[in-house]
Amino acid sequence: MPVLLEAAQAPTLADLLTYLQQQGLCAQLMDQAAAAIKIQGIGSLQQASAQEISFLSNPQLQAQLQGCQAAAVIMTQTVYDQLPAKPHFAAVIFEQPYLMYALLAQWFDQSRLNALPSGIHPTAVIDPSAQIGAGAHIGPYCVIEAGVFIGDSSRVGAGTVIGAHSQIGQHALIHPRVTVYHQVIIGARAIIHSGAVLGADGFGFAPHPQGGWAKIAQLGGVTIGDDVEIGANTTIDRGALDNTVIGHGVKLDNQIMLGHNVHIGDHTAIAACVGVAGSTHIGARCIVGGAAMVSGHLTITDDVQISGGTAVTSSITKAGRYSGVYPFAEHKHWQYNAAVISQLSQLRKRLRTLEREAELHKTKQE
Amino acid sequence: MPVLLEAAQAPTLADLLTYLQQQGLCAQLMDQAAAAIKIQGIGSLQQASAQEISFLSNPQLQAQLQGCQAAAVIMTQTVYDQLPAKPHFAAVIFEQPYLMYALLAQWFDQSRLNALPSGIHPTAVIDPSAQIGAGAHIGPYCVIEAGVFIGDSSRVGAGTVIGAHSQIGQHALIHPRVTVYHQVIIGARAIIHSGAVLGADGFGFAPHPQGGWAKIAQLGGVTIGDDVEIGANTTIDRGALDNTVIGHGVKLDNQIMLGHNVHIGDHTAIAACVGVAGSTHIGARCIVGGAAMVSGHLTITDDVQISGGTAVTSSITKAGRYSGVYPFAEHKHWQYNAAVISQLSQLRKRLRTLEREAELHKTKQE
Amino acid sequence: MPVLLEAAQAPTLADLLTYLQQQGLCAQLMDQAAAAIKIQGIGSLQQASAQEISFLSNPQLQAQLQGCQAAAVIMTQTVYDQLPAKPHFAAVIFEQPYLMYALLAQWFDQSRLNALPSGIHPTAVIDPSAQIGAGAHIGPYCVIEAGVFIGDSSRVGAGTVIGAHSQIGQHALIHPRVTVYHQVIIGARAIIHSGAVLGADGFGFAPHPQGGWAKIAQLGGVTIGDDVEIGANTTIDRGALDNTVIGHGVKLDNQIMLGHNVHIGDHTAIAACVGVAGSTHIGARCIVGGAAMVSGHLTITDDVQISGGTAVTSSITKAGRYSGVYPFAEHKHWQYNAAVISQLSQLRKRLRTLEREAELHKTKQE
Repeated sequence: MPVLLEAAQAPTLADLLTYLQQQGLCAQLMDQAAAAIKIQGIGSLQQASAQEISFLSNPQLQAQLQGCQAAAVIMTQTVYDQLPAKPHFAAVIFEQPYLMYALLAQWFDQSRLNALPSGIHPTAVIDPSAQIGAGAHIGPYCVIEAGVFIGDSSRVGAGTVIGAHSQIGQHALIHPRVTVYHQVIIGARAIIHSGAVLGADGFGFAPHPQGGWAKIAQLGGVTIGDDVEIGANTTIDRGALDNTVIGHGVKLDNQIMLGHNVHIGDHTAIAACVGVAGSTHIGARCIVGGAAMVSGHLTITDDVQISGGTAVTSSITKAGRYSGVYPFAEHKHWQYNAAVISQLSQLRKRLRTLEREAELHKTKQE
Repeated sequence: MPVLLEAAQAPTLADLLTYLQQQGLCAQLMDQAAAAIKIQGIGSLQQASAQEISFLSNPQLQAQLQGCQAAAVIMTQTVYDQLPAKPHFAAVIFEQPYLMYALLAQWFDQSRLNALPSGIHPTAVIDPSAQIGAGAHIGPYCVIEAGVFIGDSSRVGAGTVIGAHSQIGQHALIHPRVTVYHQVIIGARAIIHSGAVLGADGFGFAPHPQGGWAKIAQLGGVTIGDDVEIGANTTIDRGALDNTVIGHGVKLDNQIMLGHNVHIGDHTAIAACVGVAGSTHIGARCIVGGAAMVSGHLTITDDVQISGGTAVTSSITKAGRYSGVYPFAEHKHWQYNAAVISQLSQLRKRLRTLEREAELHKTKQE
Repeated sequence: MPVLLEAAQAPTLADLLTYLQQQGLCAQLMDQAAAAIKIQGIGSLQQASAQEISFLSNPQLQAQLQGCQAAAVIMTQTVYDQLPAKPHFAAVIFEQPYLMYALLAQWFDQSRLNALPSGIHPTAVIDPSAQIGAGAHIGPYCVIEAGVFIGDSSRVGAGTVIGAHSQIGQHALIHPRVTVYHQVIIGARAIIHSGAVLGADGFGFAPHPQGGWAKIAQLGGVTIGDDVEIGANTTIDRGALDNTVIGHGVKLDNQIMLGHNVHIGDHTAIAACVGVAGSTHIGARCIVGGAAMVSGHLTITDDVQISGGTAVTSSITKAGRYSGVYPFAEHKHWQYNAAVISQLSQLRKRLRTLEREAELHKTKQE
């Protein structure tokens, strides 16, 4: 199903295993004769064709091995040992098949990227004071303002605008139609998807004595660590005075909104449609589920998991999982129960009254 | 109020009725003399001017007919029969006035589109291997990559980027500043609004044994059927291995997020700000209200309606309407009641205790 | 921490006070000798350097004055009078330090804007019928369609597209990569952030008798007042027949979605990720918290505050604060209590039964 390389361009299984070894993953091939097989792509157990490699990461799918058409399948030693017979595909043994799949998928995606046009497109408008690293690609209709620095081997997609004095580290992949405002610092190996807006003004106003709102101009910037991925149409506002700060290895899905002066700790992953209001600090290694919202000026400690759709309205000082979602139901059923919500406090009082009466009754009887 | 055509360009009422007939809608004009009236636009009963046509779709607005300035009004036979006298406007009789308004509005919008510049703008950067259909319009500063196919009579707005090997059917209307990544297939008559991003990477990571996250490169694509509309700043991610799939006639509002490998059935309509997490399948003819969220790996059957703001956290196997929204109230009132939420389980226990005591009491008395 | 001007470009404290006076703010300098100090930027009490001005708006931070490095600090007379000794910085006395900071920050941001390139970039594609005001800046790769009007001294950032017959008032700041569709009217001094889409089609469909949906072409426009700010990736849809209307001084954060024919009253401020469905009218001077959602066809009166995350599903006729958020908790705790939500109606009945029995019991005993 996924894009295949033509046979002429395809790597052998041995090539792929060598690449994995360079990444620190040592997989074992059960049948050395299979090393020469050409691998043109990756597929799921059910969809992979005879030119592709597949993987079994979920032991419950073991039954799918029988009908699998793939040339090779990654599996654990335990799974392999349970096979009823020598398999009809090349077995690749590795204890974390899903991780191995992840790195192989990267290899195939990188081979696609390597084939794309490179160099600086003649239509790119680049300020003479900007520094473009060696091997960097700047796509058509990009605008690179004064004092910008773009690291070696980075790709900037078509129509992207990089504001004055911003910096992008090496080996970054900026997709088309991204906006980076002025004075935004982005680390190495960033992946930024189309429509992302980094460094727009935070939302700050003071009531004006003559009525209406006086804008607080946002003078801070944004600092983004290494190995950060930012999804499509996600927005990260610049700080009011100090910077908004995104740690190393942070992964942000699409349509996330991070307000001014938010801090996100290293390796925290946030799913789509999450909003984090201004000045909130989220710790390291947190996982925030989709469509959650976090109020402003809070502190969420490290290693917190927040369920999708939860509104976090106070700080969290203890690691663990937190939730707060109204359970859905058939509409009529929901209506009946939701009507009681506005009486909960009264219900509790009525219950207390009954309890007191029961107490009194018991006391009398004794 | 809406944009009017100049009298010289305006159609007669007869022209419009002929157009509707071609669409399968046979309306009846009560006074044939009115056929020659020039119609320069469409307005509501209260706002339409003497050069415009209006419509009565909601019988409760019947009283507005009296003061209506419109040259012509679409109404049902029933409404017409109830008029106290021959009306001062031309009556157009049709059993579904709202549908007739819809098609007339399309006619006026199409006449605006027809007047826009067409052809391939000289600034468009188009790879020589791309195929551009007859009569297609490619706007200024578009970038069309290798192997792209664009169908006949399609319009691609300014600054839109279409990635390698993507396809767009005929008679599509792609507004300015859209991003279509590589290998995204879009059917005929698509309408895609500005800021939409189709085919960005799904959000997939495996924990890396050395800490942090290993990216799962997203090798699948996106397949979008015919007659699909996609709203402004909506994002649809590409699949991990297989494709994300949007059926025929699906209507998506603004700022919707569909994760990787989501499937949306034919003619389903989704309102703004909805998020659907990865691998969830939503059936045909569903209606999802605004700001609803749907968790990942679920199956929602056909003909389901989900109320706005509902968090759907488990699969739905039965057609019907589902809801789950916390009722809002004056802040103080909400606070009192919300404080009880964290004690609900305790309250239920206390109620059970009282019930047991009451049971016991009754038993004793018998 | 924030961007500093070089000493040669920096204003003196006296320059800044004169500017504030022109804005109607009369601050008092306690030590006239300080008037000549060069101010290169603004910093918080803890971060400001010796070349910067700072401010104390929150009396609880008074202790930070001692270690403050700033050249000058804005404070109230009351705070000044409580200082234990003549301060080591220049004291600037003003009763609203936060407002003064706001205007000073504007000054510094304006000085940055003034230094940006201006004029019409040769790559901008501008229809001959468009009118561009005196001193306006049109950035690279902008597309300005027929009949557009852009007011004096306005800036239009790179890659922005302005559709036919739209108007932008004077002194506007349109950031890069904004889309304004056709017939959108925007007032003076607008600030519109990157990725915003103004005037895309509202979400309107009629069920088609032959199955599926018939599009209601959206013939209305958008009217936006003076002094409006619109955040990154926010979308405002055009009206179906009449216009969508945004009042004067309205402030919209990022990723907000306003449906067709929404009206927002003057000086209302809406935080990020809010959705307002079609035809809803929100009054003047309202404040809507982040990620709130407002259903369609409602009327919210003036001076209403809606807490973040609240779903407003019915009209509000009385000013005040409204909330409706499910309280979050540790996951297990949430699970226990959420399980009771679906029994609330039953619980109320059981409670009522017990109350009746208790009544009966008491009656018997009397």
